[in-house]
Amino acid sequence: MNEIDSNSLAKIVMNWCDQLTAISSNPDNISRFYLTPEHKRCNEQVAQWMQDAGMETWVDAAGNLCGRYEAQDPCAKTLLLASHLDTIPNAGAYDGILGVLVAIAAVKILNDSNTRLPFAIDVIGFGDEEGTRFGSTLLGSRAVAGTWNPDWWQLNDRNGVSLQQAFIDFGLSPDEIKNAARAPDDILAYLEVHIEQGPVLEDENLALGIVTSIAGARRFSIDISGYAGHAGTVPMNMRKDALVGAALGIVKIETIAKEYNVVATVGKISCGPGAVNVIPGHASFTIDIRSGDDQLRDQALAKIQHELDMICVARGLSVRWQEIHNAPAVVCADWIQELQTSVLCDMDVTPYKLMSGAGHDAMALADSCAVAMYFVRCKGGVSHHPDESVTEADVALAIEALSRTLEKLSQ
Amino acid sequence: MNEIDSNSLAKIVMNWCDQLTAISSNPDNISRFYLTPEHKRCNEQVAQWMQDAGMETWVDAAGNLCGRYEAQDPCAKTLLLASHLDTIPNAGAYDGILGVLVAIAAVKILNDSNTRLPFAIDVIGFGDEEGTRFGSTLLGSRAVAGTWNPDWWQLNDRNGVSLQQAFIDFGLSPDEIKNAARAPDDILAYLEVHIEQGPVLEDENLALGIVTSIAGARRFSIDISGYAGHAGTVPMNMRKDALVGAALGIVKIETIAKEYNVVATVGKISCGPGAVNVIPGHASFTIDIRSGDDQLRDQALAKIQHELDMICVARGLSVRWQEIHNAPAVVCADWIQELQTSVLCDMDVTPYKLMSGAGHDAMALADSCAVAMYFVRCKGGVSHHPDESVTEADVALAIEALSRTLEKLSQ
Repeated sequence: MNEIDSNSLAKIVMNWCDQLTAISSNPDNISRFYLTPEHKRCNEQVAQWMQDAGMETWVDAAGNLCGRYEAQDPCAKTLLLASHLDTIPNAGAYDGILGVLVAIAAVKILNDSNTRLPFAIDVIGFGDEEGTRFGSTLLGSRAVAGTWNPDWWQLNDRNGVSLQQAFIDFGLSPDEIKNAARAPDDILAYLEVHIEQGPVLEDENLALGIVTSIAGARRFSIDISGYAGHAGTVPMNMRKDALVGAALGIVKIETIAKEYNVVATVGKISCGPGAVNVIPGHASFTIDIRSGDDQLRDQALAKIQHELDMICVARGLSVRWQEIHNAPAVVCADWIQELQTSVLCDMDVTPYKLMSGAGHDAMALADSCAVAMYFVRCKGGVSHHPDESVTEADVALAIEALSRTLEKLSQ
Repeated sequence: MNEIDSNSLAKIVMNWCDQLTAISSNPDNISRFYLTPEHKRCNEQVAQWMQDAGMETWVDAAGNLCGRYEAQDPCAKTLLLASHLDTIPNAGAYDGILGVLVAIAAVKILNDSNTRLPFAIDVIGFGDEEGTRFGSTLLGSRAVAGTWNPDWWQLNDRNGVSLQQAFIDFGLSPDEIKNAARAPDDILAYLEVHIEQGPVLEDENLALGIVTSIAGARRFSIDISGYAGHAGTVPMNMRKDALVGAALGIVKIETIAKEYNVVATVGKISCGPGAVNVIPGHASFTIDIRSGDDQLRDQALAKIQHELDMICVARGLSVRWQEIHNAPAVVCADWIQELQTSVLCDMDVTPYKLMSGAGHDAMALADSCAVAMYFVRCKGGVSHHPDESVTEADVALAIEALSRTLEKLSQ
């Protein structure tokens, strides 16, 4: 048995990540978008590595790169090991990419030892998770999950190229999109390795984490109306300052989020008329609230709404909420979490469990099959930034954990 | 003696205000800016009314319209009764204008009764108080106060026309600007009638008020820096959210302003990166803080700075203040305030005293002479808006009060 240890493979994976940084539409940074020439070049490069690891490769009807490592039994179910190969503009080197390459490394271990499992493995590098080009996220994994929405064909990129046209330009046929969908009955499960994109594992001094759920997010745009006035002539006790109302609301949002153990963020704010010497008669802000538990999130939200109402009533302000996004939480399969726990225990790694606050391809696949994720520590929790960083040692542990998970799944 | 009562004159003044609304660069609203054709037409119209009230008129070297009502003694000092004839874009009908026309009405009373006072009266309609066209306010009254700044010649309007060129186009000579300045020794005092532009008199159910001082204002731009992050992946207790810091600061500003009896306003706010799903790493806002008492204002400001520092230190944020405006308070002359008080008592009007939170031409003249102001109630405190409104009855009281003030000054 020609065994390659996970440390050597981690070095290779890190080198692969480095190589992919060069496949970018912008020579100054990492920018790789769906159905572009860079997407094609990336697929070709990664396909080569898949083939070297013993996989048969193809690009599916949605532009996703697929690599198959056959089972002992050709009729066996398939385990999907996947993440995405696209990036945001000016991205880091690991978001998505690492998960695909770690999966190839895990298959390479099997192939190098001539091991076949009682299930096939399809490694998938999704073409679009970030939604950078067409504004809608998870296009690659939605196609595989069979939840492609025909309305998407009319989405345009910034140059006015429709998604439909982009398919044709890439050499794909929009009519065949349904062929990208995997039959749920054929899937054993979906397993994704991804960088955490947050600071929790680093804070816990742990290389790996087991994801319990992917947070459901709700987003609202909130408008508060009061009465504009002259900053010099209206006494403090006669004001209906919409921005002070908003500020009290923002403070309450933080307090209630902590109280309910959810995350809530006000990411955008503006006020009008918006002059240094005019009392704001209007203030608008957004709230993004997430939790692994939809009910808990909605309880926190109800309390926020109640408190903001109270603030506004007390101040003669009016408030209007408009929901702009609502995605339920996705729970990772208990049976795979148990298996992951036992894997980490075997490795003498604390089986730390955490929620994913960010969205992932696993959310799309949850419509088809049991899903699970490993998180890998990233430096400072930084992601979506060129400073995104993981250590080779952590990558080695991720490869080992994934490899051991395949082994346990075989039992 | 051909006496016209103040009620009849109020009707005339209201009619004059109506007539001036038609002199506008925009047919849909009131927009009358410095050194424009509308400024010239307005000067011509008001000059006619001045002449009808027995005044000799001229346009001074800064474009201000002046009307002189001579004293008994040609060597006597001059009382300036003035306000401005320019407007903001889409203005109301009374801001500034009312003060000029009430002054003409008061002179008309003297003229109609063939009364000469021991001082001359110059009614001045300043060409620029609002600063709409060139961005710098009080240009007309600064010229009269002799505090014209030669740097202003290079100010440009939105079409790139310099103030210097606008002077020439208007038929004025920039070289002669100093001729607009009045010698302080020749001025008895400066007295201005103006709408309150705030809700205090209405709230007190009073038509008139005596201004004690014009608030000194300081303005700052405040930047708070924290650390941007993913709205889903960074737990609440690991965030350095700049916007929550700003929100706490805005709430404190209101609290402290009330505590110190000053007015403080946050009129502009923004945060960055400014996405619904990103924790703000940066927040910027302005503060405008005013009081009739500079020391009190600065004490409140120091407390605000201290509290904001404490908030930021506790949250790992940094804060930077940049001063963008600093004008000291102007105190109205005690001796004129006493005289105004006795006038209102004679009229059986409560001699209510209040600070002006807004700036006025009187601020400029305070560099040359004793200044005083009467405020006239305006509906809802609304100003700088087409809804600006005063009642004819209040205007009659303003004319009577001004007329009686002239009488008392003569004694």
